[in-house]
Amino acid sequence: MEGSPGTTTRRGRPGHDQQAVLRTAVELFNRQGYDATSVGDVARELGLTKSAIYHHVPSKEHLLRTAIDEALDALVGALDDIAATDDLDAGARLRIAVRRSVTVLVEHLPAVTLLLRVHGNTPVQKAALARRRTIDERLADMVRAAVAEGAVRDDLDPLLISRLLFGTVNSLTEWVHGGADEVGAEALADAITTLAFDGLSRRPADPAR
Amino acid sequence: MEGSPGTTTRRGRPGHDQQAVLRTAVELFNRQGYDATSVGDVARELGLTKSAIYHHVPSKEHLLRTAIDEALDALVGALDDIAATDDLDAGARLRIAVRRSVTVLVEHLPAVTLLLRVHGNTPVQKAALARRRTIDERLADMVRAAVAEGAVRDDLDPLLISRLLFGTVNSLTEWVHGGADEVGAEALADAITTLAFDGLSRRPADPAR
Repeated sequence: MEGSPGTTTRRGRPGHDQQAVLRTAVELFNRQGYDATSVGDVARELGLTKSAIYHHVPSKEHLLRTAIDEALDALVGALDDIAATDDLDAGARLRIAVRRSVTVLVEHLPAVTLLLRVHGNTPVQKAALARRRTIDERLADMVRAAVAEGAVRDDLDPLLISRLLFGTVNSLTEWVHGGADEVGAEALADAITTLAFDGLSRRPADPAR
Repeated sequence: MEGSPGTTTRRGRPGHDQQAVLRTAVELFNRQGYDATSVGDVARELGLTKSAIYHHVPSKEHLLRTAIDEALDALVGALDDIAATDDLDAGARLRIAVRRSVTVLVEHLPAVTLLLRVHGNTPVQKAALARRRTIDERLADMVRAAVAEGAVRDDLDPLLISRLLFGTVNSLTEWVHGGADEVGAEALADAITTLAFDGLSRRPADPAR
């Protein structure tokens, strides 16, 4: 498995190998930090040489960008889908935005986790933060629209609501691992949407215990 | 400011210096990661030599442990205060636990931020994670008690409720910076408690717009 050119079957499947390299790199970035991870670490984890890695990907930063774009594209795609529907009021759109942000997070867990840990030291990271800010602004606008429509309470700053709401969603990366024993994406989306919109308190209308 | 022994006024104030070293170290750990930060970085940031730093603190890991203990002691102290009150029902205790976890986070922001980023590679980090788990279990028990009492909805897993609730609180470290222009700790605690218990949706009983 030391992978000198032509000696491994992996070389015959570049698409497969690129995916394996990306998956392993993102796992290491999330586990030990992007700065602390070298291309050599990724090679070692895969049982390949560094030059075998460079055959598949041009740089460590390219791996970071690919993963971050996966997460950002999925989030933007979800918001674009919602924007393209015209038969829903602002409250329903916001509810769907919360649901979809949960399912995107679970379905793209390693990439979203990496995105949320990016802190902007390089051009790739700065570009990712700028795209994240645009998404955050779209989400805050959705909260403002739902407040204006009367679906969401107007006694709290919509920007604060937006930060807390999507902060809750993002906090899933701290404990969701995508294991088979865990609550699935749809059940998580149900729970978060229910809690966020209806709150923890047992409603007075609930049957007494 | 290169700090050879006896030449700076800092040497005359060891307590002050230890605090300055700790504050600077935690800031660097949070900004660039614990692993990526050396004692040399801390010295450079303070305009001191490495040996001047070692005059004040025995090691980088000691700085990490001191900051983590500050955060954990504050959180445990808040929970102990709540446990010591006997005139409150479980719903009120949970509400206070949410409030206090917000105010502890804001008041000890750098230390709590560092604590939440610890991922357990060294004995100090493993010990911190073990103490964090104990706190998480106490919080989950408080949610269970509030559900059992009928104050909190029983259609969602109490452990899931606990994770989402305190995940929301912890997500504050992503955007709260303790600046004078920001919402204060008490106002944040109000907003989070209101949202968590009463939810986003405008109540049917609210006055119509």
